[in-house]
Amino acid sequence: MPRVRVHNFSVSLDGFGTGEGQSLDAPFGHAQMRLHEWALETLTFRAMQGKPGGGAGVDEAFARSWNQGIGAEIMGRGKFGPQHGAWTDEKWKGWWGDNPVFHTPVFVLTHHPRPAVQMEGGTTFHFLDASPAEALATARDAAGGLDVRIGGGPTTVREFLAADLIDHMHVALVPIVLGRGVRLWDGLEGLERRFDIESVTSPSGTTHLTFTRR
Amino acid sequence: MPRVRVHNFSVSLDGFGTGEGQSLDAPFGHAQMRLHEWALETLTFRAMQGKPGGGAGVDEAFARSWNQGIGAEIMGRGKFGPQHGAWTDEKWKGWWGDNPVFHTPVFVLTHHPRPAVQMEGGTTFHFLDASPAEALATARDAAGGLDVRIGGGPTTVREFLAADLIDHMHVALVPIVLGRGVRLWDGLEGLERRFDIESVTSPSGTTHLTFTRR
Repeated sequence: MPRVRVHNFSVSLDGFGTGEGQSLDAPFGHAQMRLHEWALETLTFRAMQGKPGGGAGVDEAFARSWNQGIGAEIMGRGKFGPQHGAWTDEKWKGWWGDNPVFHTPVFVLTHHPRPAVQMEGGTTFHFLDASPAEALATARDAAGGLDVRIGGGPTTVREFLAADLIDHMHVALVPIVLGRGVRLWDGLEGLERRFDIESVTSPSGTTHLTFTRR
Repeated sequence: MPRVRVHNFSVSLDGFGTGEGQSLDAPFGHAQMRLHEWALETLTFRAMQGKPGGGAGVDEAFARSWNQGIGAEIMGRGKFGPQHGAWTDEKWKGWWGDNPVFHTPVFVLTHHPRPAVQMEGGTTFHFLDASPAEALATARDAAGGLDVRIGGGPTTVREFLAADLIDHMHVALVPIVLGRGVRLWDGLEGLERRFDIESVTSPSGTTHLTFTRR
């Protein structure tokens, strides 16, 4: 049975999965890249940026799992772009350039659907106004028997957790206090009872937590 | 120079240092002992409960530092007892029996001072209506040149952090989602810039974070 997975989802000590004040220049708002520095220095993410080298240790071991065996991604609209409400035009095609890193169908959850956008390299952005369960059914159909990744942001991951649709989740706890932004854990009291949880700290100071559904 | 220290301060993934609904039977409210299980199984805390044995690993290494070189403690009223507002009587002498574990002067922050209570074994409870800085000056005078421990709860630790009065803090991050209670990190955005932070995970799943003031 294909699984539903979350990878490399960074949160602060105070539980924020992104900062406040997202804009075109600041995809993560005032958090900037501080939640993701640990990942950006890994072999996997440096290669995605066209850079040589990178860490090969614990951070990399977690980072590189993100696209192994994945056939589709579901993401929230805030991960796709900084716009809100009705689309004023349809020129925006995400933050990732002409050849996005996904190389699979990607389902963007939005109350304002628009036509699908086919990119280079196998990524197609589809726009869905759907519940988590409905979106998952659609993504599973598109995933060709592979797993579906829930790509974020925090609101989307939280909604899939609340609906008990996540089989595997990797959270990277970064020891910073963001103070404001979007919280991951709200409304999820007792989440730990549904998962086996393992933790390991890396030399970057990041604590990697894996949640495996019981 | 004597330091101001926090030890064995447990928080949940969502940043709660204690649960909701404290009462005489539930000092930590709905969190019960779930934030403190890691500590209760250590040699140090089992000995305090009069029990033999206990873990001697990473959890114990952190747990046992709590009273080394400590000359006084400051605690919030919620750590001392479940009562709120004016004291209806002065019979309550804390949760710790006739011979409390502290064995030093203990300063309880309250807007309702009452006479000091001398216990067996060197613990005296003093009641202070004072700011963090004022309470610290008083505790330092009483500590005989040793360090002062900020004993909790979360509101008290947060206020001392906000006033930049903490030199060393050990936080034990427990992988549970409490959902409600009293948060440690609120109002402390950017706290990490004032501290060097180290992290290590123990086999109990607890992540020990130490904050050392820069």
